Amino acid sequence: MVRSRTNIQYNKKDGYLKLGNAKEERTFLNIAQSKRFMQTIAVASKCHKFVKENLHTTIRGLYYQLKFSIGDDVDENVFNEQSESNPLIEDLEVALEVKREDLNLNANRKGVLAGNMKIIDTFGNEKIEIDCSRQGRSGWAIPSDVDNDIKFVDIKAKYVLVVEKDALWQRLNEDLFWKKENMILITPQGQAARGTRRLIRKLADAGLPIYVFTDSDAWGWYIYWTIKTGSINLAYIGTSVATPEARFIGVTMSDLDRYDFLNKLTINASDVDLKRAQEMLGYEWIKQHKEWREELERMIKSRKKLEQDALQGPRLTFVDDYIREKIKKKEFLP
Amino acid sequence: MVRSRTNIQYNKKDGYLKLGNAKEERTFLNIAQSKRFMQTIAVASKCHKFVKENLHTTIRGLYYQLKFSIGDDVDENVFNEQSESNPLIEDLEVALEVKREDLNLNANRKGVLAGNMKIIDTFGNEKIEIDCSRQGRSGWAIPSDVDNDIKFVDIKAKYVLVVEKDALWQRLNEDLFWKKENMILITPQGQAARGTRRLIRKLADAGLPIYVFTDSDAWGWYIYWTIKTGSINLAYIGTSVATPEARFIGVTMSDLDRYDFLNKLTINASDVDLKRAQEMLGYEWIKQHKEWREELERMIKSRKKLEQDALQGPRLTFVDDYIREKIKKKEFLP
Repeated sequence: MVRSRTNIQYNKKDGYLKLGNAKEERTFLNIAQSKRFMQTIAVASKCHKFVKENLHTTIRGLYYQLKFSIGDDVDENVFNEQSESNPLIEDLEVALEVKREDLNLNANRKGVLAGNMKIIDTFGNEKIEIDCSRQGRSGWAIPSDVDNDIKFVDIKAKYVLVVEKDALWQRLNEDLFWKKENMILITPQGQAARGTRRLIRKLADAGLPIYVFTDSDAWGWYIYWTIKTGSINLAYIGTSVATPEARFIGVTMSDLDRYDFLNKLTINASDVDLKRAQEMLGYEWIKQHKEWREELERMIKSRKKLEQDALQGPRLTFVDDYIREKIKKKEFLP
Repeated sequence: MVRSRTNIQYNKKDGYLKLGNAKEERTFLNIAQSKRFMQTIAVASKCHKFVKENLHTTIRGLYYQLKFSIGDDVDENVFNEQSESNPLIEDLEVALEVKREDLNLNANRKGVLAGNMKIIDTFGNEKIEIDCSRQGRSGWAIPSDVDNDIKFVDIKAKYVLVVEKDALWQRLNEDLFWKKENMILITPQGQAARGTRRLIRKLADAGLPIYVFTDSDAWGWYIYWTIKTGSINLAYIGTSVATPEARFIGVTMSDLDRYDFLNKLTINASDVDLKRAQEMLGYEWIKQHKEWREELERMIKSRKKLEQDALQGPRLTFVDDYIREKIKKKEFLP
């Protein structure tokens, strides 16, 4: 399967980005392709070993193992740059229909969770139970792999809120918002890592509504759409990391009409914000929604943006009321 | 106290960066200073409120509260940019001899810990006990404030290892290295946040030796020296975040002589690495050590650097043996 941008399609029926049908054939008789073929086999063989040993590493660790094990009779430049081994891992993920996490390759992790659920983490030959309502100020750190040797049980919460910024997560956590509202509070700490996206997908599969709460700017919107439709980079594992059911709770430019004080707390949109908003107006999966067209056009026209932190203006706990109100009135963007 | 770079001194006796004695006086009769005086009072008054309410926010949340509460008769530009309120917080930290965390202002947090110790986190009117040896693949996420309403008990470990990269932390955590060696395994996940630096200081105060394990490059060295001597930015809270007792365990350029295979796994030093190495050769607190001069000069001469990930070359668990060996033979840089 070709993973280039030209082969990415928006799956309208299911609402996520996926690979198209363009295929690429590699033959052993073509010299350039035979080298790549050999490299792919080397990567597969290392991953097979990691799985057999039951040990994990990263794509960087894999790269060093490949570099190390090249015999003296082989061109040393075969894996001279990690950029040469990375695409091969994606090749394997597509060809074998697995995620790199299933090949014992950890991706960067980021993201924290609190709420009424438990983790059963099979780790070091023990089953460790972690109660996500007993993690205090810290929360439970979301790992890279949330599929293998880990289970999510006793999910008693009614919905999931994904909060862009750790600062706001800490604010809501301190107010025990997840306890009072019986919900699960997640922050991806910015753009969501693979593990966090996958966990959100799994919680949606468990029947929980997913609400996303970000800044009203280019970066915040990007975080939302990545969670919802997946990203172009990860379109090759489309369904397993996208959550089309996700809804956008705010902050929105239309909040400026709801809460007068926010008009005093806007900040100037940057050129990047404006350029990105214009781009997003061109994406089929965004422009189909009138509400999103209005949001994007309002920013472009006013050249202003709004941060979720601004909801702390009147008092620190205002953000709790804001979320409650939005959920009660079902005021979400699609 | 003046916090500009010209007033930063290296405290040779104790081994950390601190503020000098240069002072700045603000008088109410000078118009520009009277504005700043008023702003400082506004910041102090907000922080006082946060502490009284027992609620936390960030400097961004504080900024929005200040912006919100400006009356119509006051120039709106008083706090138009967060860059205007940030230095005032530092003023308060210095003048009151407290940390911003004591004023209920959370800083960015980052960093994870596993090992034989427990946390008593007073959170939501409960004392929550967290066992850092029962956090599975995730580890305990180090919070912004490790001083107020939180205690570290049952510290049974023999030493602390601070590992630059989360990837390597996960590798060692999976091997239960902290259990086998009875130690505490921390990753700052790159440059250490205030909370992580402060926690390292506290563990040193509890009598544990602190070893730091980073890449052998500009960024890795910077991470080490920041943990050890503090940073220029935070010199105003010098002693409370610096750990002069810390020792550098590796990876070192001299490891290339110890482990032959590593010579195959070096990568090219970047211009930034080389420039920074040259700068570090000029710092009084670094150039005084012959071992560090040799490290820096070796990189500059060879134009090569070495990553901690490279230790996974021969096998994934080699990194465990590397650390054990260094500690057994006491092979540290000062």
